[in-house]
Amino acid sequence: MALGLPEEARGHWPARRGGWSVSPVGGPGGRLVTIGVDFGTESGRVLLLDLGSGEELAVTEVRYPSGVIDRRLPSSGQELPPDTALQDPSDYLDVLYRGIPEALAAGNVAAEEVIGIGIDFTCCTVLPVTGDGTPLCELDQWREHPDAWVKLWKHHSAQPIADRLNMVATERGEAFLARYGGRLSSEWYFPKLIEIWQRDRPVYDTMSAFVEATDWIIWHLTGTLMRASCSAGYKACWSARDGLPSRAFFEAAYPGFPDPTEKLGTSFASPGRCAGTLRAEVAARLGLNTSVAVAVGNVDSFVSVPGAGVQSPGVFLMVVGTSICDLVIDRHEARMPGITGVVEDGILPGFFGYEAGQAAVGDMFAWFGSRLLGLKSGEAGSGGSWHEEFEREAAKLAPGASGLVALDWWNGNRTILGDADLSGVIAGLTLATTPVEVYRTLLESVAFGTRRITENFAEHGVAVREIVACGGIAERSALMMQLLADVTGLKVTIPDSSQIPARGAALCGALAAGSSRGGFDDFETAVLKLAPAMSRSYEPSKQDRETYDGVYSVFCALHDTLGRNHVEWLHRLKQLRRAALAPTA
Amino acid sequence: MALGLPEEARGHWPARRGGWSVSPVGGPGGRLVTIGVDFGTESGRVLLLDLGSGEELAVTEVRYPSGVIDRRLPSSGQELPPDTALQDPSDYLDVLYRGIPEALAAGNVAAEEVIGIGIDFTCCTVLPVTGDGTPLCELDQWREHPDAWVKLWKHHSAQPIADRLNMVATERGEAFLARYGGRLSSEWYFPKLIEIWQRDRPVYDTMSAFVEATDWIIWHLTGTLMRASCSAGYKACWSARDGLPSRAFFEAAYPGFPDPTEKLGTSFASPGRCAGTLRAEVAARLGLNTSVAVAVGNVDSFVSVPGAGVQSPGVFLMVVGTSICDLVIDRHEARMPGITGVVEDGILPGFFGYEAGQAAVGDMFAWFGSRLLGLKSGEAGSGGSWHEEFEREAAKLAPGASGLVALDWWNGNRTILGDADLSGVIAGLTLATTPVEVYRTLLESVAFGTRRITENFAEHGVAVREIVACGGIAERSALMMQLLADVTGLKVTIPDSSQIPARGAALCGALAAGSSRGGFDDFETAVLKLAPAMSRSYEPSKQDRETYDGVYSVFCALHDTLGRNHVEWLHRLKQLRRAALAPTA
Repeated sequence: MALGLPEEARGHWPARRGGWSVSPVGGPGGRLVTIGVDFGTESGRVLLLDLGSGEELAVTEVRYPSGVIDRRLPSSGQELPPDTALQDPSDYLDVLYRGIPEALAAGNVAAEEVIGIGIDFTCCTVLPVTGDGTPLCELDQWREHPDAWVKLWKHHSAQPIADRLNMVATERGEAFLARYGGRLSSEWYFPKLIEIWQRDRPVYDTMSAFVEATDWIIWHLTGTLMRASCSAGYKACWSARDGLPSRAFFEAAYPGFPDPTEKLGTSFASPGRCAGTLRAEVAARLGLNTSVAVAVGNVDSFVSVPGAGVQSPGVFLMVVGTSICDLVIDRHEARMPGITGVVEDGILPGFFGYEAGQAAVGDMFAWFGSRLLGLKSGEAGSGGSWHEEFEREAAKLAPGASGLVALDWWNGNRTILGDADLSGVIAGLTLATTPVEVYRTLLESVAFGTRRITENFAEHGVAVREIVACGGIAERSALMMQLLADVTGLKVTIPDSSQIPARGAALCGALAAGSSRGGFDDFETAVLKLAPAMSRSYEPSKQDRETYDGVYSVFCALHDTLGRNHVEWLHRLKQLRRAALAPTA
Repeated sequence: MALGLPEEARGHWPARRGGWSVSPVGGPGGRLVTIGVDFGTESGRVLLLDLGSGEELAVTEVRYPSGVIDRRLPSSGQELPPDTALQDPSDYLDVLYRGIPEALAAGNVAAEEVIGIGIDFTCCTVLPVTGDGTPLCELDQWREHPDAWVKLWKHHSAQPIADRLNMVATERGEAFLARYGGRLSSEWYFPKLIEIWQRDRPVYDTMSAFVEATDWIIWHLTGTLMRASCSAGYKACWSARDGLPSRAFFEAAYPGFPDPTEKLGTSFASPGRCAGTLRAEVAARLGLNTSVAVAVGNVDSFVSVPGAGVQSPGVFLMVVGTSICDLVIDRHEARMPGITGVVEDGILPGFFGYEAGQAAVGDMFAWFGSRLLGLKSGEAGSGGSWHEEFEREAAKLAPGASGLVALDWWNGNRTILGDADLSGVIAGLTLATTPVEVYRTLLESVAFGTRRITENFAEHGVAVREIVACGGIAERSALMMQLLADVTGLKVTIPDSSQIPARGAALCGALAAGSSRGGFDDFETAVLKLAPAMSRSYEPSKQDRETYDGVYSVFCALHDTLGRNHVEWLHRLKQLRRAALAPTA
């Protein structure tokens, strides 16, 4: 169950809260289990974790029936504006009510063995709700209002609002900006909230709260709204020391916009805390006891740090899926541009948690294979056969041989530029260019983007010594992992689990239960006990790195020209697209 | 048979050579016919033209069995270096010996009705030959030497040589440079010849001459080597006033390189002149009389000017096929950067003939459909069904709606940058980008490239008033033609013939025969009598042009950044590619 990192690479937890008990006590059946539920972009996964052995007893996946809603509203069929990405919250409940009973049956786990449950979610994925937690989009009166639906993390139409908030915050010298690399993202809480306030005031006025989906699920399970400090810290500009951005800031940017606490509240709970126990009707539907402890909700990327067994500065954890989230913890706070955010205790208590990332990864390859080339993927969930074929052929190509380079901005740039209005570029195309070369170039573009991010950390005093990568693509694309090593010059290690976020969520469920009920009282113990084994690692090739240094120099030139010095070029293309697609055009 | 241009738009020919006879006299059978043979990149086409009616009596096409040889040498299977493009000269003779008899049969034309033959060829397409005109690659001793084969126009591996010639010519202030927009192309005569001298000295020493394929065919037909002034003027830096670049220039660039006239000769004949009559054995194989007059060889693009009935300044003739050649004639000589060349009497006597162009057009769409998307084209010669489907769907999209822009440099940039080491770029890609959007973006990139060229002409005093477009894509892609009009703001007219170059070649055959034998004595008469009808025209849309002005501003920004100010970025990618593919790497 060791991560396989050298002993000296591991961080040490400070003694806190009067120490901790050494190991869980045995449950009545000799086995203690927690449930981790990981809500992704297209589906949710339920994991049952044996707290004694760290074994994954069962995993079930439930796809969201409505998936990502980006073309037409399901209720009315009305066309949605460009850069819209919505979801249906009833899809999330499907994951609980189908996924958990199926997992219990598959793992042959009895109700009395389950002591806790934790969840994690994409973020910032937010929805407007009534006072009793009912999503507005489930009410007939609001069902045809796009702004009443869940705004998925990659809903990008609030970019102009993010731009204005950034401009005003910069002008006013707002201190909070420094924690977010100098830029707020259109994916975050306030741009999405202000979009509703601007565009559909009745929805804004009617909602009692605008909540993260991760908080909404916990509310549903326990009957208690206890918002996570993690999502508030990274996505709503909240900090324990300074609270939220001031009303004066919002007034300066959007005169008349109400107090920011009105829909967000003022109280936030840290990871691993217990939010309550299961409501009776929920417990009955899930086939669990009402005594099951429910942890405060988590964000999928952040909870992957304890989930992967990482507890040490210098480890660059990459969660590689639809997009990439990068997480680094450090004892010291560095204010730097080009990160998504730094939050004290935001990932693990006692550390400053840094977040960065790349906005399109799995998404970009799905685009390449399905949308561009029209290839059919294999059986659902298998990763598809064309991926394997392209992976095999692309691995035969020599570095530099394609003459191509790409900017991986298919979904904008998350870091280090923080600009959703950037878009992807492929340069170096010739009549001899093959689809396999383009595929490899997209893999390389991800590695170059990662190198640019790690260099930004190093330039600002947060050294990165090695990479740990988890998530579906980290497991499936050996070529991408090798390219990451070759391009960055860092060793890349892959934990032996497909369910790192769910393991982190289940770990939080064990913290919520506490040692008195067979769980844990602190993260350090829990991470040490539940760390997954290492499956394999990739060492950088010196020779290939030299070739890639050459390609990377072109990548950086294009990156800085199109992403910084002449950002107006790609922005102009987006503006023209919006104008052309506007309904009244 | 009128081109359909307004009367005032037509140029007037100077009275010269003591006037001209008004119409051809009738032949023995009442019908006078000439043959035009158009040698393209993948095939040759034979046209029989009725000189009385201008009617196309028959057209046959013969594909080259070996096509473009760019991967492996047919004789030995040895791998060829990157940017190689060779051909087998025996393929050209197939066109004559299969195509002409088939056309005579199809058109029911008797040998005695044929009074002349003219040909045109891609250019600069050159081959080393012995003293009797035998191609070196047909001799066993030389067959496995890549440098013994025909170097096709798009053979680009001599780019470093072109770069060096340009540098030295600029340093020395060579006057000839100004006629070629300040840059020689790697596609031209001397870079290709010096490549042989550098790489395979025995081939260089053994060849008696290095001849344009167009001259080689005329030599084969008549037994006389009479080189065309047109190809020498545009591709070998020759001019009637100044001759060839000096030996001192070549000595400065490549010490020891022999006198440039050694393999090229010193005597060149202008278009429409008679090179001789058919050799007896050739006439017998073709089924023609030995009295048939053979015109000096032509270049496919230049001969399209008389072929399309164009005889007026201000008309921008585009020959749209594998690549685009742009031709403009003017009374005055303007020295300007960003053209391929300007040659006095190079296209029509009495005019300065300007050439510009775009290096990948049909090639780029073939790449998109066949190589990238893996689509099968339809029946050979039909243009393929996927083209039609994409054309139909792309026409439904609104200007600007894709958010994409491309630089059409899949085969380098011919003008206005003259740089074969540039490569294609697509910018603005998102997860929503569709293949149809990419297709339309490639069409738009061709139109933007054309606009940049027409603006360059206008900036230097050669005004362009309208576009006449011919060639396969001009006929098949109504969308590309409409985009050309919308983007440039110029009316686009399409002549009603698929065989414009072959018509020009046949016209030259009639000039070679002369009026005494039923042909013509001068271009003006011939062009007036033989101009094709206009098939249709496209008017620019003002509203679409405004949107495209926005996209074009981004095109120009990328064009100048990647093609001028930071040309080293795309060059670096090509260098890395060459290094990675080098056999010893």
